[in-house]
Amino acid sequence: MANHDTDTLARDETTNMISSEKVDGTAVYDRNGDKIGSVHHLMIGKQDGKVRYGVISFGGFLGMGENYHPLPWDMLTYGIDHDGYMVDFDKDALKDAPSHPIGQEPIYDRAYDERVTTYYGQRR
Amino acid sequence: MANHDTDTLARDETTNMISSEKVDGTAVYDRNGDKIGSVHHLMIGKQDGKVRYGVISFGGFLGMGENYHPLPWDMLTYGIDHDGYMVDFDKDALKDAPSHPIGQEPIYDRAYDERVTTYYGQRR
Repeated sequence: MANHDTDTLARDETTNMISSEKVDGTAVYDRNGDKIGSVHHLMIGKQDGKVRYGVISFGGFLGMGENYHPLPWDMLTYGIDHDGYMVDFDKDALKDAPSHPIGQEPIYDRAYDERVTTYYGQRR
Repeated sequence: MANHDTDTLARDETTNMISSEKVDGTAVYDRNGDKIGSVHHLMIGKQDGKVRYGVISFGGFLGMGENYHPLPWDMLTYGIDHDGYMVDFDKDALKDAPSHPIGQEPIYDRAYDERVTTYYGQRR
């Protein structure tokens, strides 16, 4: 879980890199500045070492049970003012987005990539 | 912290991706199969979303105080037999490697990249 005092911020964000410790647990805000959840974990490409998804927990924010929404990593922008990640859509867009309860993770194959990318592409 | 039962393995390693939950806390073994530490956290490029370093905790294994060794991510290979990461050098190579105590993280700039890459390049 991230610890967001100023010291940690300086320590975990030296120059152009960020620590996974800082990412996990960090708040996520929609385009209106409303908090919609937090980063639960990342999905990382094994071959190329690229972060593909920030998997967001919205439990409690959308009136649903605990549910995880994989968001393409390039949709998340770190906003230092908010000390959290910003996504450029409204939280209503998440209600029908690809998601899963814990323990029922999707197969992260090409078809899933396309499904997620298409969904969010149409909502921007 | 990773949880390494068969269920988690299947869940966190669908096809070509791995969860950050699985990576943090995972054991690291040297080329002789000796356990030398575990992954404490990852350092991720903010712009390109690439994992640059697995920061390894060797506390207790090398007879030093708790100390962190950033290893270039492409030096770590996941070995399913060991349920951990393998590095292709001997643990003695770590004694003089770039490392830092907690709270004294380096500036991850180009000079640091070069220092680490050069160090391990000469030890292979």
